Amino acid sequence: MSELPVSEGSVGVTAAAGFRAAGVAAGLKASGGLDVALVVNDGPDASAAGVFTANRVKAAPVLWSQQVLRGPAVRAVVLNSGGANACTGAPGFQDTHATAEHTARVLDAAGISIGAGEVAVCSTGLIGERLPMDKLLPGVDAAAGELSADGGAPAALAIMTTDTRPKTTVVPGSGWCVGGMAKGAGMLAPGLATMLVVLTTDAVADSEALDAALREATRLTFDRLDSDGCMSTNDTVLLLASGASGIAPERDELTRAVTAACGNLAAALLSDAEGSTKDVTIEVTGAASEADAVQVGRAVARNSLVKTALFGNDPNWGRILAAVGTTSAVFEPDQLDVAVNGVWVCRGGGAAEDRSKVDLTGRAVTITIELHAGGEQATIWTNDLSLAYVHENSAYST
Amino acid sequence: MSELPVSEGSVGVTAAAGFRAAGVAAGLKASGGLDVALVVNDGPDASAAGVFTANRVKAAPVLWSQQVLRGPAVRAVVLNSGGANACTGAPGFQDTHATAEHTARVLDAAGISIGAGEVAVCSTGLIGERLPMDKLLPGVDAAAGELSADGGAPAALAIMTTDTRPKTTVVPGSGWCVGGMAKGAGMLAPGLATMLVVLTTDAVADSEALDAALREATRLTFDRLDSDGCMSTNDTVLLLASGASGIAPERDELTRAVTAACGNLAAALLSDAEGSTKDVTIEVTGAASEADAVQVGRAVARNSLVKTALFGNDPNWGRILAAVGTTSAVFEPDQLDVAVNGVWVCRGGGAAEDRSKVDLTGRAVTITIELHAGGEQATIWTNDLSLAYVHENSAYST
Repeated sequence: MSELPVSEGSVGVTAAAGFRAAGVAAGLKASGGLDVALVVNDGPDASAAGVFTANRVKAAPVLWSQQVLRGPAVRAVVLNSGGANACTGAPGFQDTHATAEHTARVLDAAGISIGAGEVAVCSTGLIGERLPMDKLLPGVDAAAGELSADGGAPAALAIMTTDTRPKTTVVPGSGWCVGGMAKGAGMLAPGLATMLVVLTTDAVADSEALDAALREATRLTFDRLDSDGCMSTNDTVLLLASGASGIAPERDELTRAVTAACGNLAAALLSDAEGSTKDVTIEVTGAASEADAVQVGRAVARNSLVKTALFGNDPNWGRILAAVGTTSAVFEPDQLDVAVNGVWVCRGGGAAEDRSKVDLTGRAVTITIELHAGGEQATIWTNDLSLAYVHENSAYST
Repeated sequence: MSELPVSEGSVGVTAAAGFRAAGVAAGLKASGGLDVALVVNDGPDASAAGVFTANRVKAAPVLWSQQVLRGPAVRAVVLNSGGANACTGAPGFQDTHATAEHTARVLDAAGISIGAGEVAVCSTGLIGERLPMDKLLPGVDAAAGELSADGGAPAALAIMTTDTRPKTTVVPGSGWCVGGMAKGAGMLAPGLATMLVVLTTDAVADSEALDAALREATRLTFDRLDSDGCMSTNDTVLLLASGASGIAPERDELTRAVTAACGNLAAALLSDAEGSTKDVTIEVTGAASEADAVQVGRAVARNSLVKTALFGNDPNWGRILAAVGTTSAVFEPDQLDVAVNGVWVCRGGGAAEDRSKVDLTGRAVTITIELHAGGEQATIWTNDLSLAYVHENSAYST
């Protein structure tokens, strides 16, 4: 990887050439921790792509950033934790707009030619409350003053909410790379999760190529992460390209790198999910269609009784079959096989190998469901449902 | 209610004339508690109706009882706790068949003219294990020997699993009544729940009238109870009519009584749901269609973040809006109003009355969601997601 134009020690969104970032403490978090992040694309290109939550109740920054992505360039992303700015109506949207305007003004004053319509905004935190703009805007000023090619690390810290650790990744290409950061620990669900992800690349790629790569990548990674079945109002995944490497990779090559970066960040989200004690991989094989495999995997991933059993180290395959039975996928109930961590506890819809052979003491759990209905497959990732999940989520806003 | 032909002190399935029941301990439960129940319809009529789980993975007794219900008469129901006889394949089905055959033989020997095809079978307990037939069949013998017109109480005890109390009801008609018993504490979800319900009436009604009454009743009661979103393999609701009162009520009158009986039992299931600390009524109003209202109510009822917030006495309306936003119901996000226990904490999609005004210290919680999209409404019932739910369900089979 010596050919990579990566600064020594630079991680996440600043691993790719052409990007600077910062993370500062603006007082939005009661803890006093870092809570405002800024990512700037110094070019020469400013192409971008984005995918957003499918929730119809969308936060103000999502509505704003969707507009920004329709334009030709994204030159900066400003992100805050400490408040989601969701369900805040027209005043909340004005706050987002004002944040973008302010960011553009500050950066313009620092010599970066940029308009408010080129500034994407992401927020995360409690729903239903206005952001303290008197803290946020000075935070943007401070972040602009600290922008650096080593700012990927503090930026990743500044977007954390209940995350216990920052999440960054770097995936090398041939003379270019994809870097990224993510936050998210709960409300992880289909159609994206309570997560903010910013990916950067110094590859040369137009917005259309970035969009294609990002959609394929998220379809196979974040969209198949279903920690607790709860779809957020704020989910945003952005991919920015600076073209600073001067290298234009093949589309497949770009898609593979973006998918790998998304996969790394998805795995990091999974392993840091609120209160979780298990990282659960649900492999559905022998499906008549990929959609069937996804439907079955999701039904199992969302089943509270399966999830509590896993928390209890209980290979309760009966609950897995009961979850599969709620789907419309093609299968015959008396042909279902289920393995837990490689032990086929269920064959032909009934008991097979002794459940006591299953070792569930580790964090990684693999559930394999063979439908015997075709040649398609899909993998869904989820967590268990633990006492700590309930405790953490029953105490979040009060 | 002096006109009711109800034995003094007779409850549940024996409140209606023409029925006898029993509950005995056969050794299926490790606790030594009552675990086999028998309900016999002495007539003169033996009409019946049934609704069953929509889960495609159906337990053997469900498959059997569905066949029985296609016949002209149901004269007895034998029920066991201590094992679901689900995912047990052909041998499990043979066990159910043998149970019905044995029950018919024993009752026939006692002077009741009955064939195996007139015996419905219900089982509840752990999925994936065979029933101990060497205990179950002697239990049927014992139950047959104890049949009495006061047997409704022990029968209701014998079908309990993790239930903390028996559930019975009696709804009076004019000279007739509907009685019933239910079990169920977890896996409560749409398309019925892990529940067994036997309703009896001494009204004169043919199977077609009973079926119409039962379908309307379950649609508005059990089908709208969604404790934990998990659909069981064994759910069964049976309605048997003896005609012993000699009175044939109007269809509407019958439907109202059956609906009231189902409503009473549904409320009892809700308040005894595993580990729950809240009985939550979700009223969705102003919907464009009843289906929209049900979809919205169910999405909120199944949202783990809403449910954990309620456990934490937190009127977190933002999570409620996020759940509503996942549906395809007709609404505008900026027109949603939400009240929690009568306090309108959200109006027009944003914060309204102070959330601190909401008193969530009691067990009963009402969430009202006004969609402003039409004149239809529906009510869904659910529970919170508590530490005790996780604890109980993580330790069930091991």
